[in-house]
Amino acid sequence: MIKVICIGKLKEKYLKEGIDDYLKRINKYHKIEIIELPDSSILSEEKEILKHIDNKDYLISLCIEGESLSSVELANKIDKTFITNSCITFIIGGSDGLSDTIKNKSNYKLSFSKMTYPHGLFRLILLEQLYRSFKIINNETYHK
Amino acid sequence: MIKVICIGKLKEKYLKEGIDDYLKRINKYHKIEIIELPDSSILSEEKEILKHIDNKDYLISLCIEGESLSSVELANKIDKTFITNSCITFIIGGSDGLSDTIKNKSNYKLSFSKMTYPHGLFRLILLEQLYRSFKIINNETYHK
Repeated sequence: MIKVICIGKLKEKYLKEGIDDYLKRINKYHKIEIIELPDSSILSEEKEILKHIDNKDYLISLCIEGESLSSVELANKIDKTFITNSCITFIIGGSDGLSDTIKNKSNYKLSFSKMTYPHGLFRLILLEQLYRSFKIINNETYHK
Repeated sequence: MIKVICIGKLKEKYLKEGIDDYLKRINKYHKIEIIELPDSSILSEEKEILKHIDNKDYLISLCIEGESLSSVELANKIDKTFITNSCITFIIGGSDGLSDTIKNKSNYKLSFSKMTYPHGLFRLILLEQLYRSFKIINNETYHK
């Protein structure tokens, strides 16, 4: 099971379409669920996030100061993690990022880029990489 | 003037919508043009790209081995480059990347991530960062 906890509603219709497309594709490989929480103060967001985290989840916080991985390295990380964990939970912060509590509670901090992206676009980027991971894990070609 | 040379057609309608949205937004700050070239062999692509490059262009190749910049650093780079250059040309390769000739001809190699993205999604990501750059250059807030 993969959970993606996100802060803030998606405003753009085109992002929703892209995200729905990747959700369908990923679901052929692995169960995935998006949990969208309202954006508010960073501490209220923390409270809400904690409600949706199980102690057994393997937590990956997305943050700019995290480690950067190639697509193949991310695929390997996901593949290995599922040997010992049944749920990987990715957490994408809102416009103010994630609280230290959430970051410290995480098993891993992952950075996609030194650049700052809007959270909605970043959700699409993450889902594309998750889909790519499953293609890599299953040795399937993927060009688009 | 900003030129974005891309290889390969956009297949996804949602990406077209997102890209058109950012083109409109960027055009309020700076003239921008997308040049879409057909995907073929890496050498035929090179030939086509060279036809669309002017000797006076400041060339930025997007490639995984390039330098990584934060959004603010990219904004500063664009701002400074326009002091001495009238045209910045970004070049996004196709599924096989860019030829060495194009990379060596470039004034700068820029990497957004260690991860591999589909070229269509990457076009959207680049345009969002260019829009963000102009917001940063003009000291305007930007949250979304």
